[in-house]
Amino acid sequence: MDYLSSITSPTLLIDEKICRANIQRMAEKAKRHGLNLAPHWKTAQSRMIGEWAKDYGITEISTSSIKMAEYLSGQGWSTIHIAFPFNVREIPRLNKIATDQSISVQVINPVTAQRLVDELAVPVEFFIEIDAGYGRTGVSVADFGLIEEILLIAKKSDKLNFKGFYLHAGHSYYMPDIPALYEQTRNALEMLKNKYSTEYPLLLTRTGDTPGCAVMEDFGEIDEMGPGNFVFYDLMQEKLGGCDKSDIAVALAVPIVDINRERNEILVHGGGVHLAKDVLLEADGSNNFGEVVYLNESGWEIPEVQNRSYLKSISQEHGIIKASDALMNVAEVGQLLGILPVHSCMTADAMGGYLSLDGKIIDHCEGSHADK
Amino acid sequence: MDYLSSITSPTLLIDEKICRANIQRMAEKAKRHGLNLAPHWKTAQSRMIGEWAKDYGITEISTSSIKMAEYLSGQGWSTIHIAFPFNVREIPRLNKIATDQSISVQVINPVTAQRLVDELAVPVEFFIEIDAGYGRTGVSVADFGLIEEILLIAKKSDKLNFKGFYLHAGHSYYMPDIPALYEQTRNALEMLKNKYSTEYPLLLTRTGDTPGCAVMEDFGEIDEMGPGNFVFYDLMQEKLGGCDKSDIAVALAVPIVDINRERNEILVHGGGVHLAKDVLLEADGSNNFGEVVYLNESGWEIPEVQNRSYLKSISQEHGIIKASDALMNVAEVGQLLGILPVHSCMTADAMGGYLSLDGKIIDHCEGSHADK
Repeated sequence: MDYLSSITSPTLLIDEKICRANIQRMAEKAKRHGLNLAPHWKTAQSRMIGEWAKDYGITEISTSSIKMAEYLSGQGWSTIHIAFPFNVREIPRLNKIATDQSISVQVINPVTAQRLVDELAVPVEFFIEIDAGYGRTGVSVADFGLIEEILLIAKKSDKLNFKGFYLHAGHSYYMPDIPALYEQTRNALEMLKNKYSTEYPLLLTRTGDTPGCAVMEDFGEIDEMGPGNFVFYDLMQEKLGGCDKSDIAVALAVPIVDINRERNEILVHGGGVHLAKDVLLEADGSNNFGEVVYLNESGWEIPEVQNRSYLKSISQEHGIIKASDALMNVAEVGQLLGILPVHSCMTADAMGGYLSLDGKIIDHCEGSHADK
Repeated sequence: MDYLSSITSPTLLIDEKICRANIQRMAEKAKRHGLNLAPHWKTAQSRMIGEWAKDYGITEISTSSIKMAEYLSGQGWSTIHIAFPFNVREIPRLNKIATDQSISVQVINPVTAQRLVDELAVPVEFFIEIDAGYGRTGVSVADFGLIEEILLIAKKSDKLNFKGFYLHAGHSYYMPDIPALYEQTRNALEMLKNKYSTEYPLLLTRTGDTPGCAVMEDFGEIDEMGPGNFVFYDLMQEKLGGCDKSDIAVALAVPIVDINRERNEILVHGGGVHLAKDVLLEADGSNNFGEVVYLNESGWEIPEVQNRSYLKSISQEHGIIKASDALMNVAEVGQLLGILPVHSCMTADAMGGYLSLDGKIIDHCEGSHADK
């Protein structure tokens, strides 16, 4: 019995071969550029996939919440970085995991730095996050006053140790000119390193959204890259030019529940609670919530462009596929189709687990975003 | 110690009093109109909240997946309806739960009807779902050929028993003229009932999206209403006129991690993995992913209109609040704020659990949408 026959309901499939190839390619690129690859594990959120990553020399990862850091701690990582402006309500939990696992955090204001100085029971390193101009979060790159205020507070402590500067150029998702963007990032981090390395000779600079890390070939003096999505990729990344569709390592298996032959539409059990609601726009202005692939015993096959089918609308549990003639010719109620996700981080988080192509369940941090 | 001091990370709060009042109001409305209220439990997804509902005479509920039906079975419901076009791959699971729990399903094509006739081991009732013109799913209201084909297949079986017609007017979310829409729905269901009640004297008709059930006062000959969202309501429903903000029974507690006094913005830990990504548009065209309420020991307080603050952008874990001056004056790093959700069904599903105002954990069907 192959893995498909065991599936009754929407299930997130992972192709280990594709996933390993993605990790290996990024690890080799980092090595070629003399960078340390410390990937962001908010995409995979998995201990098992962490084991795969270790095969390519990866020793340090990031998480986006303390819950995820707790889940991944004690698994042999040299450091786990919580890549989110630190939330002072979580200091007791931080003290607990940082006792047995090296942890680093992110600090962007003096209040948080002071609370850490006052309440840390064990040593923790911190990055100062720099606002890349994206404006989401971080200290403005030219606000030396604020940077030095934070450093001064940390200096009073033997537990809160400065590690370097972290810059997430998340606006690469919205900007066509990634090289120009990276020139900004390189310049900002180089300037900060020059300015502070006399006092902090070991300071590191880290950057790395997936589009940038996938596309760029000049990282200047940057020390570390921290992309996340590249482990799986998705349709959004393909659109940005960071990968091919054949590099996408996850697909949601969905059962066909109805076929509308007048409208060339297929109704599947697969909606917003499975895929999340990220969406791309088609050339004709219609929505695309994910693209159909044909599942087979060894994985999935991507249709030729002229036979492309995609999810044109979703609700909480329903998905409606705008089907090509080729798909209409073979589709049957009760069959499974695969859907390549628009945003794999959100899909993996929504599904909370994976099925490998040899029928094994691959773990995912449960309720990584909620304390139940 | 009140419930707030125990919260370190994003947590979904539920106000039992508001929730019970919502259920009671809808139950009284149903009774006033001689309708049976069989609410859709895809919103609450909770056994405990089911117990609250039973206090108002509710005996039958719906789910949107077999997993959720499994979770709620054996809890004393007279029938659990799986309000989703039935997925034939789940027949073995259906046979299993329907042995001890009365279950009804939804059928919209002959292939599914035939598979059920061939493979059902225990009696199950079914609704034929009628396409309300929304076009998402169901048999077109005038396609008597298809309706009769399904009925004829079911007749061959002593296990697949016709219960009636189900019509979900989900387009009420997008149409301003709900009364006109309900005239269509009433006419469609009345016509079908007249046409088939000679042969099926016990047949029932059920409809009921929340906007319609909240707003309408004329349900004609319809027998049952099945709204879901009304248990919690949310900002979307408030915008549609179905509730007041003070009727919203859930709020996401989020910790403040940074405050930007130049931009009047507050960064919180609370993003797409917590709230989901449903969004409303403000009058000025900006996005609104949820509105700020002030948390206190007994629940939350909604600011005056002129002091309104809302989430203007979210990413996977981050949320940025556009803050009123009043909020800027009191906000501190480390405080908790409450966020009223845009779409409470998706938020509850993302969070997978609730905290009551007296500090108790309220259950939510775990991974209701995925088999891990």
